[in-house]
Amino acid sequence: MAGRRETYTPQSLLEVAVTVFNERGYDGTSMEHLARAAGISKSSIYHHVPGKEDLLRRAVSHALDGLSAVLDEPPATTGRAVDRLEHVVRRTAEVLMERLPYVTLLLRVRGNTETERWALRRRRDFDHRVAGLLRQAAADGDLRPGADARLATRLLFGMINSIVEWYRPQRGGPQVSAEVVEAVVALAFTGLRPPDRGAS
Amino acid sequence: MAGRRETYTPQSLLEVAVTVFNERGYDGTSMEHLARAAGISKSSIYHHVPGKEDLLRRAVSHALDGLSAVLDEPPATTGRAVDRLEHVVRRTAEVLMERLPYVTLLLRVRGNTETERWALRRRRDFDHRVAGLLRQAAADGDLRPGADARLATRLLFGMINSIVEWYRPQRGGPQVSAEVVEAVVALAFTGLRPPDRGAS
Repeated sequence: MAGRRETYTPQSLLEVAVTVFNERGYDGTSMEHLARAAGISKSSIYHHVPGKEDLLRRAVSHALDGLSAVLDEPPATTGRAVDRLEHVVRRTAEVLMERLPYVTLLLRVRGNTETERWALRRRRDFDHRVAGLLRQAAADGDLRPGADARLATRLLFGMINSIVEWYRPQRGGPQVSAEVVEAVVALAFTGLRPPDRGAS
Repeated sequence: MAGRRETYTPQSLLEVAVTVFNERGYDGTSMEHLARAAGISKSSIYHHVPGKEDLLRRAVSHALDGLSAVLDEPPATTGRAVDRLEHVVRRTAEVLMERLPYVTLLLRVRGNTETERWALRRRRDFDHRVAGLLRQAAADGDLRPGADARLATRLLFGMINSIVEWYRPQRGGPQVSAEVVEAVVALAFTGLRPPDRGAS
């Protein structure tokens, strides 16, 4: 990063901060760490941002805004609930890969600060809206009977969110893997067994 | 914990250590922290164990031994691969809940010490054996065509492992929730859509 001194924009500083937060943990990161990673002085950083919590807020907002926007896309708001749910699952996986370091950070937030608790509330709102779709799909008779909406939502997001643990886009390749998206949608909606043997 | 002084066994000390490791992170835990949580002196702890890495090794062994044993159970070693796979998924979810704090610790291991790297190797061995079952089931024609074994294994365990994030057994209730186990098996093998609409 040496030599990039004085060329920082709020956006490029945010990218550096997200990388450092993910490496050291938010609690374990000081403004000193951020300054060193950015190759600028601590006072230069304070010129750009009031403090590390502001960087955290902007970073998790980028993740949360991307995820929330999915719920407002036309295919998520019109049509049968099960199809809207499928759209949300597909697009959530895509947004997760598009904004990989930001969503990674969001998923590690633990609630020690005001900003973290706000992020957890927004995550819960998102989960509730998806659980609502699941309940509606079940009421429509479009979900396997017996599936508990809250439990299914948790397992579904457990599967999707685990992508951050191992997915690394190929250098020079697309940020989003269509193969991963299809695997998520297929596993979530039709499971591993072929349809004709689905009823075990 | 006050008053339990001098009553520590290697097992009860291990339970305290796992709790503290999960709360503070292994790296963030000192022998001083462990002594305080156990309500005994640091020298008493050293009487029981050579150091914190030994406690980590025993804790993650308890998780890994439980998970590995699943792969050697008769229903995991005989019969069609898809049925063996279903047994492994079901039992893995059960072992995860039975040994919840131990598996939680295992899943957070990052590879900074010899013991952590050893644990990661054993986790990978387990994953490879399950991916092998998936490949065999696909070769038998018992899995939905097009499912990539490595990708499906990752998503499957992403779903199962996410249970540690939110599952807390009810006080006085069973340690393992049959409802959660059934939800995992159903989502993994038949997906959310009912069988007759499985082919989307």
